[in-house]
Amino acid sequence: MTLSVGVIGGGQLARMMVPPAVELGLDIRVLAESAGESAGIAVTQLGDYRSADDVLRFAQGVDVVTFDHEHVPQAVLRALVDAGVAVRPGPDALLFAQDKLRMRERLGALGLPMPEWGAVSSIADLDLFLATHGGRAVVKTARGGYDGKGVRVVSSGAEVADWFDDDDPLLVEELVDFRRELSQMLARRPSGEIALWPLVESIQRGGVCAEVIAPAPSSTGRLREVAAEIATTIAAELGVTGALAVELFETTDERLLVNELAMRPHNSGHWSIDGSETSQFEQHLRAVLDLPLGPTATRAPWSVMVNVLGGTAENRYPAALADQPGAKYHFYGKDPRPGRKVGHVTAVGYELEDVVFRARAAAAFFED
Amino acid sequence: MTLSVGVIGGGQLARMMVPPAVELGLDIRVLAESAGESAGIAVTQLGDYRSADDVLRFAQGVDVVTFDHEHVPQAVLRALVDAGVAVRPGPDALLFAQDKLRMRERLGALGLPMPEWGAVSSIADLDLFLATHGGRAVVKTARGGYDGKGVRVVSSGAEVADWFDDDDPLLVEELVDFRRELSQMLARRPSGEIALWPLVESIQRGGVCAEVIAPAPSSTGRLREVAAEIATTIAAELGVTGALAVELFETTDERLLVNELAMRPHNSGHWSIDGSETSQFEQHLRAVLDLPLGPTATRAPWSVMVNVLGGTAENRYPAALADQPGAKYHFYGKDPRPGRKVGHVTAVGYELEDVVFRARAAAAFFED
Repeated sequence: MTLSVGVIGGGQLARMMVPPAVELGLDIRVLAESAGESAGIAVTQLGDYRSADDVLRFAQGVDVVTFDHEHVPQAVLRALVDAGVAVRPGPDALLFAQDKLRMRERLGALGLPMPEWGAVSSIADLDLFLATHGGRAVVKTARGGYDGKGVRVVSSGAEVADWFDDDDPLLVEELVDFRRELSQMLARRPSGEIALWPLVESIQRGGVCAEVIAPAPSSTGRLREVAAEIATTIAAELGVTGALAVELFETTDERLLVNELAMRPHNSGHWSIDGSETSQFEQHLRAVLDLPLGPTATRAPWSVMVNVLGGTAENRYPAALADQPGAKYHFYGKDPRPGRKVGHVTAVGYELEDVVFRARAAAAFFED
Repeated sequence: MTLSVGVIGGGQLARMMVPPAVELGLDIRVLAESAGESAGIAVTQLGDYRSADDVLRFAQGVDVVTFDHEHVPQAVLRALVDAGVAVRPGPDALLFAQDKLRMRERLGALGLPMPEWGAVSSIADLDLFLATHGGRAVVKTARGGYDGKGVRVVSSGAEVADWFDDDDPLLVEELVDFRRELSQMLARRPSGEIALWPLVESIQRGGVCAEVIAPAPSSTGRLREVAAEIATTIAAELGVTGALAVELFETTDERLLVNELAMRPHNSGHWSIDGSETSQFEQHLRAVLDLPLGPTATRAPWSVMVNVLGGTAENRYPAALADQPGAKYHFYGKDPRPGRKVGHVTAVGYELEDVVFRARAAAAFFED
């Protein structure tokens, strides 16, 4: 009865799919670019995710192909589909996670709330947008950005002159006056079933997720409902399969605006490994295999996840586990490097302040 | 900061160490006898656990060696220790899990409660024991038995005539009039720290564990205390490191008698993956690395684990997950064969009857 899942990309998201795959008795195989990546234990092939040959060879004999990242080119995705491979999420959906301009257009057509935005192809275009939006705005490359890369806050078109070299239009968005950032995650099966996790708060530092609180504090019934409706609409209308993260701004005037989409397990869902009855990684595997989804109730009133950035080459486990034996430690097998996400820690419990303290205390042991 | 753990043996216990090892960022390596064993994803070497050469080569560069089973010969264990390898549990402790006669002698010297027993070297010896113990008794080979193998209930010495061929004395034990079987699990670090899980009830069918209920129903304060004291004494006095299972009989006259010992993660602790704040597999890894142990509180009032024996070659996940989406499914990557343990299912919750029902219902989908 062994079902097999092929994951393209060998990073920490692929790595974190390994435990539930092993538990469920699935055959998990990973296509990595090089030896020694985070998901090394499950790597069955080294190759280039941009090469249709490499990817088609990897896909032979697996029941479904899914992803550690969203960078597989559309032509490669189409080649897989044409060869009869189950690709989840499929290229039609993934397009909107790959191209932020297409995403904005599509969400606009669905009437979903977003920051004001524009597509700009020149410094003059961008200066015009700035002139009508308070003189400052966020500029993003439509493709290839992540964790703050490919994103700049500018007050003059000249500040992204280098990005116009590529001929591709850029996305410009108003600077939203937001109170906090939220994330609504769900998983959706090809057959249509959707399961949502609680709305969470995501705290960013330097454009990178630093902490997540689940559920988001003071998330009233109305806020929760709107977030769930937005994410459900996106998943169903875009035909998303697997995990979906909808990053949201909660504005100071109490609106929710869609910031970014990710069609894969996401940093804002790492808490679910320890804090939810079904983790995002198990759920993603179930969803892409079109298996019934698991319950997403929390295991404790509060879960707090803190990323470990940078890291240390030393073994800090003796001190950390002595101080915080009940925190859950997750490391990705990466060499420490300033700013690099090398792991995360999750604490769960009954009192939010206490849980935040414990998660931060545990994570702090691993940073220099 | 990567710590490495080498596991000798590629069965399901080694397999179930993989998820926590991956989560904790440990480098887990497995020495298996052949390709395609349960722990295949972590196998780094094929070899013979009875060969000191194979095992010494495997142990190079790992921080600690531990075990999927207790069958590594003492001479091989000693060779590892002599070569400076950290072996946990060590040979002096493991001896008492390998040899049931030595175990009985040692527990007797510690004054721990046991069934009446004897060492018998001939049919005549055995017949004498039978004559003084009600005419029926349990005979066990001192070494090599598991899951009901190497165990016979006899009423005449002639019934184990074949076992006397080996010249090794056999262990004979009185047939205990027991109410139920219990198991007390704990983990112990080399530095001495011990953490106990709740006492559990283990339901056997045909000499094989069928179900485990955690905690054991109606386990009063006194019962719990005695079980904990017995297991703690064994762990400390025998110098056990890593996980220890002490299988106990609760007699109809309310005594606890030690049945068997296992110095490794054990079937009676599988519930802890989903039902305890720290699973026996994570705790075993922490213990053998001499890291501070995690909390062993339950995540829910009741956890019930049901083994899947035999199994089916078909994919029953769609039906099982539709019916019991919240059960936790664990499969070991083994081909189905009558009576073979191919996986287990755990349910957790508030009402014991409901939890038992859900665990059994989920497991039943996978048996023919």
